[in-house]
Amino acid sequence: MNYENFFAERIADLQNEGNYRVFADLERKAGDFPHAKNYRADKVADVTVWCSNDYLCMGQNKEVLAAMHEALDKCGAGAGGTRNISGTNHYHVLLEEELANLHKTEAALVFTSGYVANFTTLSTLGSKMPGMLIISDELNHNSMIEGIRLGRSEKTVFKHNDLDDLERILKEQPHDRPKMIAFESVYSMDGDIAPIKEICDLADKYNAMTYIDEVHAVGLYGEHGAGVAEREGLMDRLTIIQGTMAKGFGVVGGYIAGSKAMCDFVRSFGQGFIFSTSLPPAVAAGCRASIRYVSQHNEVRIKHQANARMLRDKLDAAGIPHIENPSHIVPVMVGDPVLCKRASDMLMEKFNHYVQPINFPTVPKGTERLRFTPSPFHTEEMMDDLVSCLVDVWQSLSLKKAAA
Amino acid sequence: MNYENFFAERIADLQNEGNYRVFADLERKAGDFPHAKNYRADKVADVTVWCSNDYLCMGQNKEVLAAMHEALDKCGAGAGGTRNISGTNHYHVLLEEELANLHKTEAALVFTSGYVANFTTLSTLGSKMPGMLIISDELNHNSMIEGIRLGRSEKTVFKHNDLDDLERILKEQPHDRPKMIAFESVYSMDGDIAPIKEICDLADKYNAMTYIDEVHAVGLYGEHGAGVAEREGLMDRLTIIQGTMAKGFGVVGGYIAGSKAMCDFVRSFGQGFIFSTSLPPAVAAGCRASIRYVSQHNEVRIKHQANARMLRDKLDAAGIPHIENPSHIVPVMVGDPVLCKRASDMLMEKFNHYVQPINFPTVPKGTERLRFTPSPFHTEEMMDDLVSCLVDVWQSLSLKKAAA
Repeated sequence: MNYENFFAERIADLQNEGNYRVFADLERKAGDFPHAKNYRADKVADVTVWCSNDYLCMGQNKEVLAAMHEALDKCGAGAGGTRNISGTNHYHVLLEEELANLHKTEAALVFTSGYVANFTTLSTLGSKMPGMLIISDELNHNSMIEGIRLGRSEKTVFKHNDLDDLERILKEQPHDRPKMIAFESVYSMDGDIAPIKEICDLADKYNAMTYIDEVHAVGLYGEHGAGVAEREGLMDRLTIIQGTMAKGFGVVGGYIAGSKAMCDFVRSFGQGFIFSTSLPPAVAAGCRASIRYVSQHNEVRIKHQANARMLRDKLDAAGIPHIENPSHIVPVMVGDPVLCKRASDMLMEKFNHYVQPINFPTVPKGTERLRFTPSPFHTEEMMDDLVSCLVDVWQSLSLKKAAA
Repeated sequence: MNYENFFAERIADLQNEGNYRVFADLERKAGDFPHAKNYRADKVADVTVWCSNDYLCMGQNKEVLAAMHEALDKCGAGAGGTRNISGTNHYHVLLEEELANLHKTEAALVFTSGYVANFTTLSTLGSKMPGMLIISDELNHNSMIEGIRLGRSEKTVFKHNDLDDLERILKEQPHDRPKMIAFESVYSMDGDIAPIKEICDLADKYNAMTYIDEVHAVGLYGEHGAGVAEREGLMDRLTIIQGTMAKGFGVVGGYIAGSKAMCDFVRSFGQGFIFSTSLPPAVAAGCRASIRYVSQHNEVRIKHQANARMLRDKLDAAGIPHIENPSHIVPVMVGDPVLCKRASDMLMEKFNHYVQPINFPTVPKGTERLRFTPSPFHTEEMMDDLVSCLVDVWQSLSLKKAAA
């Protein structure tokens, strides 16, 4: 066994399959998002970023930055420990109050990331609730799948957004058995949205908890940006709402919101929570400022949706194929991994538009795509330029156009 | 099944056992560490913090704060995506270079926390290396244990720091079987240190990889703060060095360092890495500034060790029992969970000294303790005051004194 050779061979395999990832080395420009510097082998170029999950450009919001500067001066760089051992800063306490207020829940609990929030909460509920059955949408995010695996409870997968399949599973289970339906609101790759009300109705009928991942929705939907469940008046029907502060809120960190007892349970038993140094106070302060801003500025959400609509219309006019969906995510379809990567490379190197290619295993083979996430700060001029560059790329690579 | 009742009952159980955790609500004071404000039900008090893992008070270092302010103004609040999808900022690239330089390795890889670094790396190696056996020290941290569990490879536990037991396990294994010895350098609860050289000798003899967790050592040991392995001239003998930027470096985030191929392997397959939004650029900038500072200021490490020695001497003079060990960690033994919590409460409420009680399951029953981590910024005056308060607490609670 030669370990170095083993690692090198697996990397070579990835390269041969076309699945080796090369990271774009960027320097974001506060005050000039969505522009960034792109460091390349030979030079530094200015690019327009089209694939960020900082959906509202809150990462450059002046109130967020001011809150972070202030907390940095006041409390220093790090939190200094885990939440239990000297690492609970007053900003964490205030942030959890803010999140509970946003979702109209009794309590909230902050984690170092959305990944850790999903992973820790699901593994804790799976392992600490005797007899638990987790009923999981087949397209749930990796962090949910891995958390469910680690919890080692029984698990059943239902077909994506399929209420009949979900009910088929639920009706076979004893009413008194602990069970939970785990799903997302906005699915990030196709941009489709779950039937939340109907899922809650089934949960009530069969006595199941509900766990909703709203990471691609918080900040973006609802009168105060509390997510799709807010928009549809369903927040009080969900047992656990999970979200992130890295996307719509533009900073970093994850959370859950729900009842006081449930949050206290996860706080007390969740190992990824207990054994991690807490977020820096300045990050907690920035998140809180962002949530406050976003909840009070519904016009940002209106502009965000309008921009997604505008990009779609321009793509339609140019014959660039994309998946229509009810969210802010605009997946432009290529359908081949090598061409998808080449299209992305051409856009970056020739036209200074940056959009990451999305290939297998993130999406099924044959559905390779460029996933655009236009923000409120992408102008019509940028979109016109992007679409004309896409037309050039489509012609150069002979990619399939949309049916007329 | 009533879910709310279930959660509430488990919380009540914890309270009845004396294991329910109440977080101290603190506000760290940059420029005045180790002091912090402590928010209580009725008032706000100034306290001296004795249990932080910001061991060198780098959280208030001016160069670190300046780097964070600068990056915040330049790049904004968050990274904007995962490392692969628009979230690699130039500061991440520079930070990974800095870490590789610190450990004299070909490469390094940054994670959102030390927990995620351990968890992701160990689960990835366990699941992606066919036939893998992980040989794990029995006192390894929860993040290592859980990562090994999730990887689902075969695992064997060896007795803590016991070379004979380790060799017994190794010699039974085929030379060509992939295997890895996973251990820590400084164990955080007793402050003892692993026999790194002898473990590396066994690894060479039996063709095993070595994985060392140096989270309680990086920044603190070695001429440049690269850890115990640096101090002992052993860095080039370890396959993987894992560390944190939340403790000795005072910010947040975790990492591994090692060969280019190994880091690339974990980068390419590690799900907790791939699917997490990357650290904010300002955090990466702060970490880099801290590593640079710490590596150039060995006098901070000398003062740190001297302060631990000074506190031990004063405890000895006062008859307060503590575990002698070769590290910076000073565990003062109480030996009872209820008295340990009461001692901590008295120190906080009556004397404004904050040290968290450490009870089961973090330490074995009967070894409950107050774990002190004096920094270079704790003065002799603070120590004198602390020790006289400890004497008062020991008398009030009739705690056992050290043998004369």
